[in-house]
Amino acid sequence: MGKRVAVVLAGCGVFDGSEIHEASAVLVQLSRDGAEAELYAPDVDQMHVVDHMKGQPTKEKRNVLVESARIARGNIKDLAKLDVKGLDALIIPGGFGVAKNLSTWATQGKSCIVCKEVEDVLKAFHAAKKPIGLCCISPVLAAKIFPGCELTVGHDTECDGRWPYASTAEALRELGCKHINKQVSEIHVDVQNRLVTTSAFMCNAPIHQVHDGIGKMVQEVLRLA
Amino acid sequence: MGKRVAVVLAGCGVFDGSEIHEASAVLVQLSRDGAEAELYAPDVDQMHVVDHMKGQPTKEKRNVLVESARIARGNIKDLAKLDVKGLDALIIPGGFGVAKNLSTWATQGKSCIVCKEVEDVLKAFHAAKKPIGLCCISPVLAAKIFPGCELTVGHDTECDGRWPYASTAEALRELGCKHINKQVSEIHVDVQNRLVTTSAFMCNAPIHQVHDGIGKMVQEVLRLA
Repeated sequence: MGKRVAVVLAGCGVFDGSEIHEASAVLVQLSRDGAEAELYAPDVDQMHVVDHMKGQPTKEKRNVLVESARIARGNIKDLAKLDVKGLDALIIPGGFGVAKNLSTWATQGKSCIVCKEVEDVLKAFHAAKKPIGLCCISPVLAAKIFPGCELTVGHDTECDGRWPYASTAEALRELGCKHINKQVSEIHVDVQNRLVTTSAFMCNAPIHQVHDGIGKMVQEVLRLA
Repeated sequence: MGKRVAVVLAGCGVFDGSEIHEASAVLVQLSRDGAEAELYAPDVDQMHVVDHMKGQPTKEKRNVLVESARIARGNIKDLAKLDVKGLDALIIPGGFGVAKNLSTWATQGKSCIVCKEVEDVLKAFHAAKKPIGLCCISPVLAAKIFPGCELTVGHDTECDGRWPYASTAEALRELGCKHINKQVSEIHVDVQNRLVTTSAFMCNAPIHQVHDGIGKMVQEVLRLA
C-alpha cells in the first residue's frame, strides 16, 4: 500500500496562490514513489487576485479552493474536511498564496496570523508525529506554530541575485527558530519535529533545480512516514 | 549556447486553458537540457471560464495571455510578437484551452478552425524546418494545418479506462493524417514534417508517467533543433 499524503494548496499562481511548478513537482514525485496525493485547500476568498502579467492586483474576487482545483484537475477537497487519521504525511507547496491566503505573512511578516484551519492541520500532523514537508515560503507557517523548530528557506544573505528573499531567514530567527543555510538542491530535516524543508523558488534558480530539490523533500517525507 | 524554444500557452487550467502539469513538464525538461524557454500566449478572451471544482462554466471573463502568465511566473509575451527568426523550435502543451482558445476543436471537432495567429506560427516553424513538439490534444492543430502528417494522441480504442479520448485518433484519420498508437511513455516522430507528439493526459495515467513522456518529447525536439 502506498502512503497517503495530504497536499494543501493556496490558489493557482505564484503571486496570489500556490506556485504552480512547486505543486506539480510535489505531485510528480509522490506519484513516482507510489504514494497517493489527496489535495485540499481552504474554501475562502483569496486575499486578492494578481494580474500575473502586470504584477498588480485587480478588482476580481476568486476562491482559494476553486482556483486550487486547476492544479488538482478537479480532484480536491475542502481543507475543513481533512482528517489526519488515515493520512501519513502533509506537504504544503510555496507561492505567495501561503503568505496571503493561508496566513498573513505577506502583510504582517513575523507578526502574522496563520489561518485557523491551517494551524489545526499542522498541529494535528505534528501531534501524531507524522512528517510535514514545506518549501519556498511555506516554512514560515511552521516557524509560527512550532517554536524553536529548525528550517531552511535557502540562504540568509543575498548573493549574485540568487536569494532575493534572504531576509526571510532572519525573520525566522527572530521567531526563535534555527535557520540552516541550504542550496536549492538541498533539504533540511528537523528530526525532532519531523519537518522537511527546501528553498525551491526562494532561490532564483533554473526550474529543474527547483523541481529536483522538491523531489528530494518529498522523498524524505515519504521515508519518514 | 542553449537552444531557444517558443512555448505557446492557452490559459491556466486543464478545463479551459493549458494543462498545468504538461506545461510544467515542458519547462522542467527544457531547463534540464540547457534550453531557453520563451513563453507566448494569444492576447484574447478565453472561450469561457470553467469552475474546476464543478466542471461547469461560470459567467467570468478571463484573458488567455493574462492567465497563461500564472504558469509563466509573469515572464510571457503576446503571441502576435513571436518571430520565428532566432527561435529553434516550438512546443505547445495540451489542455482543453488548445481546443477552446487556440482552435475551435472543442465545439467543432475535425471541422474546427485554428486561430490565425496560431496557424501562422505553426506554418512559420514548419516552413523553416524547425521542429514542433505537441502533446495531449495539441496534435489536432497540426492535423488541421499539415495534411497527411503522422501523429499520436495515444490509442484509438478504449482499454481499462486508460484512453477516455480514444475517438480523437479516428478524427485525425478522417482529416487524412496517419495516427500511430503509442503508450503514454512513448513519442512519435514524423521525420518529414519534424513533428514530435506524445499522448500525455489523453491517457489516464499516473502524473509521473505523463511528466516523463513529455520529457522524452522535449528531448527529441531539442535533438532535431
